[in-house]
Amino acid sequence: MRTLDTKNFSVAGFKVWGIHCGIKKTEKKDLALICSDREAAVAGVFTTNRVKAASVLLNAARVKSGKGQVIIANSGCANACTGKRGMADARATAEIAARELGVKPDMVYVASTGVIGEFLPMAKVETGIKTAVGLLSATGWEQAEEAIMTTDIYPKFSVVQEEIGGKTVTIAGIAKGSGMIHPNMATMLCFIVTDASIAAPMLKRALLSSTERSFNNITVDGDMSTNDMILCMANGAAGNKKPASGSKDMKKFQACLDTVTSSLAKQVVRDGEGATKFVVIEVKNAKNPVEAKRAAMAVAKSSLVKTALFGEDANWGRIMAVLGSAGVDMDEAKTDIYFGKAKIVERGLGQGKAAEREATLALKQREVQIVIDLHKGKGAATVWTCDLSYEYIKINAAYRS
Amino acid sequence: MRTLDTKNFSVAGFKVWGIHCGIKKTEKKDLALICSDREAAVAGVFTTNRVKAASVLLNAARVKSGKGQVIIANSGCANACTGKRGMADARATAEIAARELGVKPDMVYVASTGVIGEFLPMAKVETGIKTAVGLLSATGWEQAEEAIMTTDIYPKFSVVQEEIGGKTVTIAGIAKGSGMIHPNMATMLCFIVTDASIAAPMLKRALLSSTERSFNNITVDGDMSTNDMILCMANGAAGNKKPASGSKDMKKFQACLDTVTSSLAKQVVRDGEGATKFVVIEVKNAKNPVEAKRAAMAVAKSSLVKTALFGEDANWGRIMAVLGSAGVDMDEAKTDIYFGKAKIVERGLGQGKAAEREATLALKQREVQIVIDLHKGKGAATVWTCDLSYEYIKINAAYRS
Repeated sequence: MRTLDTKNFSVAGFKVWGIHCGIKKTEKKDLALICSDREAAVAGVFTTNRVKAASVLLNAARVKSGKGQVIIANSGCANACTGKRGMADARATAEIAARELGVKPDMVYVASTGVIGEFLPMAKVETGIKTAVGLLSATGWEQAEEAIMTTDIYPKFSVVQEEIGGKTVTIAGIAKGSGMIHPNMATMLCFIVTDASIAAPMLKRALLSSTERSFNNITVDGDMSTNDMILCMANGAAGNKKPASGSKDMKKFQACLDTVTSSLAKQVVRDGEGATKFVVIEVKNAKNPVEAKRAAMAVAKSSLVKTALFGEDANWGRIMAVLGSAGVDMDEAKTDIYFGKAKIVERGLGQGKAAEREATLALKQREVQIVIDLHKGKGAATVWTCDLSYEYIKINAAYRS
Repeated sequence: MRTLDTKNFSVAGFKVWGIHCGIKKTEKKDLALICSDREAAVAGVFTTNRVKAASVLLNAARVKSGKGQVIIANSGCANACTGKRGMADARATAEIAARELGVKPDMVYVASTGVIGEFLPMAKVETGIKTAVGLLSATGWEQAEEAIMTTDIYPKFSVVQEEIGGKTVTIAGIAKGSGMIHPNMATMLCFIVTDASIAAPMLKRALLSSTERSFNNITVDGDMSTNDMILCMANGAAGNKKPASGSKDMKKFQACLDTVTSSLAKQVVRDGEGATKFVVIEVKNAKNPVEAKRAAMAVAKSSLVKTALFGEDANWGRIMAVLGSAGVDMDEAKTDIYFGKAKIVERGLGQGKAAEREATLALKQREVQIVIDLHKGKGAATVWTCDLSYEYIKINAAYRS
């Protein structure tokens, strides 16, 4: 597997672009179009929130076919909590794109992100789609990525190549965060495309597996969105032989997809609203994997822990307090905590000034690892998160203004 | 029932004081002593965190007797995650107070709040107790309250009087917050004393009932502490006839206790770390009361909702998103949301610019009410919380420095 560190990539058979059509109040791009030149296998993962945006409802129905060709995404307006009109607008968006591109409407997937409760300005969307269709380019990924960003500061890309079924295939993804990031759902917008040929049911299984090991292990602020989705399109333009279930080729494909989703998930956390640190929370030897994940997530979500991380304060007591209320089997007198390599807590007790100095040094890094050993079993889990800073408050106090 | 709006109150048979003995690095008071001149009935509610401070473990054992006479409380050091030495220190603290006051050690209750993982400076504690005993006064409540404060800005008192069993009885409480405030536990330190005569089992039932309707309905940051407790002492100095179960007198006593605990719980939220607003979240017509509480708490805990409140932004979409992921039966198309009197959402849809303007006006108040009508059943719950501001981050990023 080779990682391509560039924004100027292309994936055979795909053309993309992003423009400003007027959904956002600023001049920033707000409409992205991703098109395959042929029918592709499609898989999707969607928010588990009971309140689902029109785009989520539409795509969740369409993805059952396992087929698709186009993704039309907008930022600035979530088209969520918009009732029947919102659903009609989502359908109309797909129909306009289908008409302009000459594909069947049910081959088009729709995605939205932005403010909840506002309607899409459909005239602008229609003009925007026409403009975007005219600009489609094999190397337009940077434009497409910019057009799905909201409070994101950095664009997020991941591209890998691998030999599968006798051909070089490319797997590439773009994503947007960066608030309302919490798992058991897709946690943001992420579009992955590949020129690999792969059966839709296998693509679905691979995507679910990758999601579980990437996007479902991240949290920024503990809030779940109404709009989040991951869509993956495989158009087969590479001309490879379809990988068989359990084959070496399928394992290679899975590894590629894992790399792309993990990279994008980490980029989403690094660019979490106001984040100054990327934080890895690893829980070891929990009673079971479910409790390990629950404990790691509880620590990752705690405002008190996250503010201490921002302050570079080795306040391990807050971690203990969170573990004690996380609803997992734990015993203070058995618990060890490490900040980086510094064992700051052994069997529930602080390890003194030297350990604290070493831990504080670890906290001063841009990337922080916290390891919690519960000594209760063999369950393990790793969660990625960020700290909680003034900037988070600033961004979220004035988001709609 | 009369409410006494003064800090210079006294409760018959109780003497109290607070001093600085050197546990805190600043010159602020850090040791409080509350003493009854006779054995009192005692009830307590303690944190449900699995990680419990030594004081919680000690008191939870002692309160089984239903008896006590003294509370010795310190701020600046939580004496939590301190193992056997911490437990020995808590016991020693009680023994020193018992010796100096001439009472039995198991009549003494201990409370601590502050940094987790540090040991109590026992020499300072011993000197401090001796000094405090010499200063005990019937009107020393303001000193005692100051001595249990940590990041609290305002002292918290509540005093009521009522005719019970032919006598005027006084019920008075002090409390400290103001981070790590989350329910299913006592949620902070709260000491309530009364000169009423009441049987210990009835006092316990009354305290549990009051707690459920006050401290268990508040959240500041969703974090549960290791040290939280409510202790209530009734010494009978008023000479009233003990109220019988279900009697009119017992109802009057319960109403007094409810008033004191509700007042203190609200004061804790108003003084939540960095709080600029007091927010009432009311969920109506949920499937059942449990789901109503779960939904209200989910909204109250959401960082995205709390920052929008700080920003006075009527961003009702965030409330919808939280409700959808709260694990309660809800249907977007049935949900109404009010900010103050402004119905900003009806059957899942925003009600336009005029409603939004009215809602924004409601958000500009110091006290904000959000009402959510799920139209699913008859369950109702009210939760009190505060907004999330820059100041919360500032306080918690540097708490131990």
